[in-house]
Amino acid sequence: MQKLLYEVSCGACTVADALAELKHFPSEMLSCAHLDHHRRLRTGVPEVVYGENKTAGQIADILKKLLGFSPAVMATRVSQEKGEAVCLEIPGLVYHGEARMVTAKMEEPEPEANGGEGLIVVLTAGTSDIPVAEEAYVTLRCLGHAVEKLYDVGVAGIHRLLSRRDLLDKACVLIVVAGMEGALPSVVGGLVDKPIIAVPTSVGYGTGLGGIAALLGMLNSCAPGIAVVNIDNGFGAACMAASIGRQIRRQKGRS
Amino acid sequence: MQKLLYEVSCGACTVADALAELKHFPSEMLSCAHLDHHRRLRTGVPEVVYGENKTAGQIADILKKLLGFSPAVMATRVSQEKGEAVCLEIPGLVYHGEARMVTAKMEEPEPEANGGEGLIVVLTAGTSDIPVAEEAYVTLRCLGHAVEKLYDVGVAGIHRLLSRRDLLDKACVLIVVAGMEGALPSVVGGLVDKPIIAVPTSVGYGTGLGGIAALLGMLNSCAPGIAVVNIDNGFGAACMAASIGRQIRRQKGRS
Amino acid sequence: MQKLLYEVSCGACTVADALAELKHFPSEMLSCAHLDHHRRLRTGVPEVVYGENKTAGQIADILKKLLGFSPAVMATRVSQEKGEAVCLEIPGLVYHGEARMVTAKMEEPEPEANGGEGLIVVLTAGTSDIPVAEEAYVTLRCLGHAVEKLYDVGVAGIHRLLSRRDLLDKACVLIVVAGMEGALPSVVGGLVDKPIIAVPTSVGYGTGLGGIAALLGMLNSCAPGIAVVNIDNGFGAACMAASIGRQIRRQKGRS
Amino acid sequence: MQKLLYEVSCGACTVADALAELKHFPSEMLSCAHLDHHRRLRTGVPEVVYGENKTAGQIADILKKLLGFSPAVMATRVSQEKGEAVCLEIPGLVYHGEARMVTAKMEEPEPEANGGEGLIVVLTAGTSDIPVAEEAYVTLRCLGHAVEKLYDVGVAGIHRLLSRRDLLDKACVLIVVAGMEGALPSVVGGLVDKPIIAVPTSVGYGTGLGGIAALLGMLNSCAPGIAVVNIDNGFGAACMAASIGRQIRRQKGRS
Amino acid sequence: MQKLLYEVSCGACTVADALAELKHFPSEMLSCAHLDHHRRLRTGVPEVVYGENKTAGQIADILKKLLGFSPAVMATRVSQEKGEAVCLEIPGLVYHGEARMVTAKMEEPEPEANGGEGLIVVLTAGTSDIPVAEEAYVTLRCLGHAVEKLYDVGVAGIHRLLSRRDLLDKACVLIVVAGMEGALPSVVGGLVDKPIIAVPTSVGYGTGLGGIAALLGMLNSCAPGIAVVNIDNGFGAACMAASIGRQIRRQKGRS
Amino acid sequence: MQKLLYEVSCGACTVADALAELKHFPSEMLSCAHLDHHRRLRTGVPEVVYGENKTAGQIADILKKLLGFSPAVMATRVSQEKGEAVCLEIPGLVYHGEARMVTAKMEEPEPEANGGEGLIVVLTAGTSDIPVAEEAYVTLRCLGHAVEKLYDVGVAGIHRLLSRRDLLDKACVLIVVAGMEGALPSVVGGLVDKPIIAVPTSVGYGTGLGGIAALLGMLNSCAPGIAVVNIDNGFGAACMAASIGRQIRRQKGRS
Amino acid sequence: MQKLLYEVSCGACTVADALAELKHFPSEMLSCAHLDHHRRLRTGVPEVVYGENKTAGQIADILKKLLGFSPAVMATRVSQEKGEAVCLEIPGLVYHGEARMVTAKMEEPEPEANGGEGLIVVLTAGTSDIPVAEEAYVTLRCLGHAVEKLYDVGVAGIHRLLSRRDLLDKACVLIVVAGMEGALPSVVGGLVDKPIIAVPTSVGYGTGLGGIAALLGMLNSCAPGIAVVNIDNGFGAACMAASIGRQIRRQKGRS
Amino acid sequence: MQKLLYEVSCGACTVADALAELKHFPSEMLSCAHLDHHRRLRTGVPEVVYGENKTAGQIADILKKLLGFSPAVMATRVSQEKGEAVCLEIPGLVYHGEARMVTAKMEEPEPEANGGEGLIVVLTAGTSDIPVAEEAYVTLRCLGHAVEKLYDVGVAGIHRLLSRRDLLDKACVLIVVAGMEGALPSVVGGLVDKPIIAVPTSVGYGTGLGGIAALLGMLNSCAPGIAVVNIDNGFGAACMAASIGRQIRRQKGRS
Repeated sequence: MQKLLYEVSCGACTVADALAELKHFPSEMLSCAHLDHHRRLRTGVPEVVYGENKTAGQIADILKKLLGFSPAVMATRVSQEKGEAVCLEIPGLVYHGEARMVTAKMEEPEPEANGGEGLIVVLTAGTSDIPVAEEAYVTLRCLGHAVEKLYDVGVAGIHRLLSRRDLLDKACVLIVVAGMEGALPSVVGGLVDKPIIAVPTSVGYGTGLGGIAALLGMLNSCAPGIAVVNIDNGFGAACMAASIGRQIRRQKGRS
Repeated sequence: MQKLLYEVSCGACTVADALAELKHFPSEMLSCAHLDHHRRLRTGVPEVVYGENKTAGQIADILKKLLGFSPAVMATRVSQEKGEAVCLEIPGLVYHGEARMVTAKMEEPEPEANGGEGLIVVLTAGTSDIPVAEEAYVTLRCLGHAVEKLYDVGVAGIHRLLSRRDLLDKACVLIVVAGMEGALPSVVGGLVDKPIIAVPTSVGYGTGLGGIAALLGMLNSCAPGIAVVNIDNGFGAACMAASIGRQIRRQKGRS
Repeated sequence: MQKLLYEVSCGACTVADALAELKHFPSEMLSCAHLDHHRRLRTGVPEVVYGENKTAGQIADILKKLLGFSPAVMATRVSQEKGEAVCLEIPGLVYHGEARMVTAKMEEPEPEANGGEGLIVVLTAGTSDIPVAEEAYVTLRCLGHAVEKLYDVGVAGIHRLLSRRDLLDKACVLIVVAGMEGALPSVVGGLVDKPIIAVPTSVGYGTGLGGIAALLGMLNSCAPGIAVVNIDNGFGAACMAASIGRQIRRQKGRS
Repeated sequence: MQKLLYEVSCGACTVADALAELKHFPSEMLSCAHLDHHRRLRTGVPEVVYGENKTAGQIADILKKLLGFSPAVMATRVSQEKGEAVCLEIPGLVYHGEARMVTAKMEEPEPEANGGEGLIVVLTAGTSDIPVAEEAYVTLRCLGHAVEKLYDVGVAGIHRLLSRRDLLDKACVLIVVAGMEGALPSVVGGLVDKPIIAVPTSVGYGTGLGGIAALLGMLNSCAPGIAVVNIDNGFGAACMAASIGRQIRRQKGRS
Repeated sequence: MQKLLYEVSCGACTVADALAELKHFPSEMLSCAHLDHHRRLRTGVPEVVYGENKTAGQIADILKKLLGFSPAVMATRVSQEKGEAVCLEIPGLVYHGEARMVTAKMEEPEPEANGGEGLIVVLTAGTSDIPVAEEAYVTLRCLGHAVEKLYDVGVAGIHRLLSRRDLLDKACVLIVVAGMEGALPSVVGGLVDKPIIAVPTSVGYGTGLGGIAALLGMLNSCAPGIAVVNIDNGFGAACMAASIGRQIRRQKGRS
Repeated sequence: MQKLLYEVSCGACTVADALAELKHFPSEMLSCAHLDHHRRLRTGVPEVVYGENKTAGQIADILKKLLGFSPAVMATRVSQEKGEAVCLEIPGLVYHGEARMVTAKMEEPEPEANGGEGLIVVLTAGTSDIPVAEEAYVTLRCLGHAVEKLYDVGVAGIHRLLSRRDLLDKACVLIVVAGMEGALPSVVGGLVDKPIIAVPTSVGYGTGLGGIAALLGMLNSCAPGIAVVNIDNGFGAACMAASIGRQIRRQKGRS
Repeated sequence: MQKLLYEVSCGACTVADALAELKHFPSEMLSCAHLDHHRRLRTGVPEVVYGENKTAGQIADILKKLLGFSPAVMATRVSQEKGEAVCLEIPGLVYHGEARMVTAKMEEPEPEANGGEGLIVVLTAGTSDIPVAEEAYVTLRCLGHAVEKLYDVGVAGIHRLLSRRDLLDKACVLIVVAGMEGALPSVVGGLVDKPIIAVPTSVGYGTGLGGIAALLGMLNSCAPGIAVVNIDNGFGAACMAASIGRQIRRQKGRS
Repeated sequence: MQKLLYEVSCGACTVADALAELKHFPSEMLSCAHLDHHRRLRTGVPEVVYGENKTAGQIADILKKLLGFSPAVMATRVSQEKGEAVCLEIPGLVYHGEARMVTAKMEEPEPEANGGEGLIVVLTAGTSDIPVAEEAYVTLRCLGHAVEKLYDVGVAGIHRLLSRRDLLDKACVLIVVAGMEGALPSVVGGLVDKPIIAVPTSVGYGTGLGGIAALLGMLNSCAPGIAVVNIDNGFGAACMAASIGRQIRRQKGRS
């Protein structure tokens, strides 16, 4: 743009030619803005491949292209078989079985010694909810956030939750994953004053309606400070938590 | 029947005539059984009028007839206006405003001194759930059961629940009334080892779906020992609790 | 706690140290209470493994650990293949094919001679409802309750129900299992004055909506004294029935 | 048509003119067929006005026009106020309060002496279902069918149903009206071998879902020989019953 | 009964003994009535086995028992493989592939020469609806009714329907099977004045909701004289049609 | 933009200043594009006010502002009372009672003499669907399209539809408005080869589910060339039809 | 008809015989009209086979018959395996893998040089929506329409959409295919003034409800000029677009 | 506690007595913890009264009590009439008409000069969504947060959104309120990298299903970083945003 304006100012380009060139400018500029925005995103969030209906070959192809732009990539909803095939083809990738994800190899998590600054804690009500929680955990780790797990602390084992209250107190965001009646976010919301991202899971049967019961329970929670993502959407919860985490870091950077 | 058999035995009635008379016997006998069953019921549960779509006049007419059989009568879902009209017309009846019920006047509740033997406790999550809980309370009182209330002890005020744990321990049945996400029965079910009758209420808005969210939450509870009745059905919960209470009394009577 | 107090009383521990140690006391005490509560539960209800999404190996591992605490264990929703693998690995366990459960070996059911005291009767409307009923039956047997079965007594064969009315009369709780329109609990509720736990099943097709039709039928029953559990939740119905049964026993013990 | 063909045959009309005249023949012929069909319908079923969203004036206007064709007319879903206004304006009409219908005055019902030949019986489970049943009753009476009522014979009062088994035996079609769990058609279907038209009503609350629960119950009935109409559609049930009744009469006429 | 009364009349049995013997009389008498009713049913409708979740062996076992009572038996929802296995084991049975039924061998359908007296016509909107229609057809044939088929006459091919209007005119009952929007019963109902049993099918996708769209279309039909059965319930429609057919025969027999 | 470039080319504006001015250029340019797009829209479609939750005063205020830009304005979902108040306040506006709309006064519709070129025909199944159809009709008239009405031509009166087939043949787009089972678009789609915009209405009761039944019927139509808008959305259907009409005009203009 | 009239006019056929022959005339004439209509359809739309539940053999048989009438045929919802079997059996057919269709071989698409006259553009939000879009694309190509694709231009990549605005401007109809929240049609509708046919897809999970979320999003779009077809119904969208395209061509032909 | 320990340490209290006193300690300690937690909450969030089903008198009574603890109080869902009555009774309170809230008088919003640090921006798609947005706005203002409004920037007016991109860039959290198809959060999520709290509103009709369509659209958004609250729940969104805001402040405080 600057170049074009200089050319106009020095007569190297007529006004008419400049206008012609600028004809599709809005979308190009927007698309530049978009790319810029993308770049910012990429510093925080690597490109993500939704692997559900893709073959191992298709997933590998896209991941290879993405690796050209950034060393940090992710693929979600990848079955064991497909995941292993992809990792075999592309060195430097890792398959996370419970999370059903392929990511670039990640360094060990930083020790918790930092006082939980910006710490995100992922909780589950039961053991069946763990795969969804792991999707959130791996995503957050891949995005460079400090994450801790607190699994299987549902209403029936609430003492386990209470006994780790120190961990909850250190967290800045909580991701609470629960199926069946989805009551855990309400209980956690009654204990701590932190933003809670509730993730309903399809764990359950009959009137669980594939997660609808848990979703409704969470949307109707009487505890304040809870927002909800789609059923089984561990990745989406991680994105929301990461987005909050980035705001906290930015504010710290400013001060 | 006995009379007929005597008549047959003494020849006052021929076998053929007896057979003709017995032609419709099955339904008559069943209907006797039914009446007998009804009588038994009546000792426990007085006749009940569902007042929703009835006029004050209609309610009064039915109650008058029922009063001929038993001094203990009840009408549910009666508006303030209708209830007062009915009580004005029939002396000895009382209108319970919050419960929206008309009943015969009841003596003061027996002191709790009996050690909570057969005690039924009615809990609510919030204050908006109280009318449904009162319907259960008044019904149980009218049926002659020992009942205690523990209102507004939802997840957001769980310490109030815990601080009355002694009361929960004395109870033999719990009726837990909750709207919105309906999580209270799960939490109570994690604390005590008593049969819990969960009553979803239509308290809430939007995705509360008029009580469906609470209902689903209760049906999918991960805590054992919970069964559910229809939305806002305080009366039905009381009947279930009373039925359990009667079994306990009978077993005591036998021992 | 007692030990700590002694130490304080004898000066072995300063008040300040005691306070520090007691900092996390509430949750620990609660967790003690919880364990105590658990122990109580365990006397009644053994630990239960939900086998749906677990491998035979995972089920076996958990069962082994539970067997360390109590000889009475259960796993529900276990397929034939998985169940047999588990039983092969852990001696002393039994697979119940129709109930799809693994339990510790149980002694023969006590004879009905006890006059049905505390007897729980499990009914089904059709033969397709039997697996759900068996889950309830085996659970109750495993919890040490007297149980009788009355299967395939749906509306279309109501004479079979009526012809076993003596059994209904001896029961203290009824579990009524039905799919399709779920009308059986209403009919039973019109015949006997006992607490009825209604279990909708996913038997049916089309507008049966996987058990929703039966569930709605049961929730809207015009007969009093009925409460409902989740679709196909034979285990949950058994827990509710067992909970009622324990109350009856306790009251007997007191008198 | 015949006239046109004669004109062609005698040369009074050219083939080309005849073809031109016949251009729109299909729809005209069909519409004739339709009118003929209509006439047949009218001998059985008078024209019907759906009064729900119409003013008293509009209803009266349409009824007046219809009275020009046939003395037998009906308007359904007419409120008390509108109905009385219509009857005031048009002499010879009657307002049926419970049925919420306006019809021409009808002679007294023929005595049941005819042995119930072609008799249609309308049953209701409860008293709140009566308005829907009355819509069916008045419609059938207006269509000239022999109808009997058997109201308030729900599952909770099944002896009343059984005690009128003679009436059921005389019927050729049964209309069974029920709200809440809608179990009555199943029970009736287990007792008699007659076509049953089941009418769910919106009586109930909460999970009754405005009649959906009753509808699902009826559609999933395990008893054979039941078909269902829309919620609260007493008129539609009457039309189906009348249609069956007409077939019976025709077959009788032939033999 | 008669015997007992004679014994009483001649003193061979005391009144007290008779009363004791009659204690369970109601249910026994009812069960007699029931058996009688069953017998009547069996003359019309042979015993039916719902094969969906049964093995070939289970189906064969039940069919063998039923064949002891009546030569006319049926099993519905039987897969090709299971059906052939059953027929191999029990001679005299036939597997109907499209209808997915096993029945006893049936004589050739009576010629239509009887003038359609009591004729039942089964229509389908499309070719995908044929299996459901065949279930109705085979059931009716097995029950001894005159049946004709009119398949693939949906709205998009309405001229095929109109061109067989003579067949519709001869029928006394119509079974109309349609998936997708389920509009065919409305169109047929506008053409003929016969009772129409509408069968929604699960044919369709997306918003067809497994037959719910067709079901709703049929329940809300603006044409009179239509009643609906469960989705894909060809058997149920046949039972309703057969029930109507029996009434017509009875009335003919009387006149 | 051109001005800015000239200033740059002649030195009246430095490149730096130009860049600063262009900082927010993308959105401004887009917003220009948008305004331009708006202008184009306005030549076809006047600004529209959704009156549902607005007071007469609010509606009048917005209409006054819009009248400053264009003489053609519309407000939809305006009650009688509000509509008359608005027309009283702003001269030159007209209230359309059945359509529940306020528009600028429109000249008389052009005679149909133009051979139906670009003609849009609006059909309804019943008389209760007319208000929705009128919303479409008035909107189209206001947008300057040739429109004809064909009301009350539902399946039960299909000869009326067939007798006006000439009108259907002249149309280039059909808007078909129907409630209840929503079958009319399927039938019309079987008769003509024109784009059909189907509008479900909330006319009906019970399982009509406020128009959902009609919507599902239309979405699952077996006839090709049908697309659907929201329930009761006559305005949306008119916009779609107008959009098609504009394409036809443009193509004509080009040729 | 003309022949018959001549015979009548020349006495070769009596009026009576003519009337007899004309007895079933309405349906025959309608069926003629229908065939004529069919012929017209066929010039535009070739016969289509819905392959979902048909075997390769059944599909091949129907296609062979259709090829007797027209060289242009289509089969939709055909799996890879079935499609290849059909193409092997019938030379001259092609299998389109992504569209899951079999069609006659088609000439190369005409160059876009015609200035987009009557151009239809098919857009998708994501890559998972492409199969549905391809069904629309192949259908339109097969029907002889000019079609362009613009895939993977969802909200997250809106600059790609904006950068091809020239293509949108050339189109006369847009088909917009989107799953998940289905927001793309709203965004496109805010950009261009063309008729938009929105196709929800079943892409998504959890609360996507198999496409219901996308469907609702599209039906409730705040942008004017959008109409919707069934979930995953690429074929139906193509038929609607083709129908609009034919109207445009006809108007051009007239001018 | 400390006191008790001292008494033990000095012998003023025996260990046995201390244990007895500590029997109910867990719940008391927890309830202390809870109060402490409450206090912390109160510094952030004042006590809130849900006014929906309360009378003006009831609201006033509760507010008076709350004012004893904190000068900052709120009541939501308060009608104009009730709100004015409350403000008349309690000086120092203000009624916010659009937000339908009563709060304590608040000082003027702090100038935006602080560089948007911790700024929360509330957006709406249309004007009808404003009441819900105002509930969020007033709640946040009352909680002491910097808030800005950006109303009526839906997809149809996206240039308005883009033209205020600077405001979006300054925000740390966005609350996006939208009814109908609920597409705005997706579009905003594609533009900025901030946590987005999406609030579906019940604005719309027909298939809008009282906000369900918008809710589903938001839950299925393809844009990352979005979480959702209940329909019309402006207050809940504000609580979530405030909770995020508090985390940001705390992290700033630490650094």
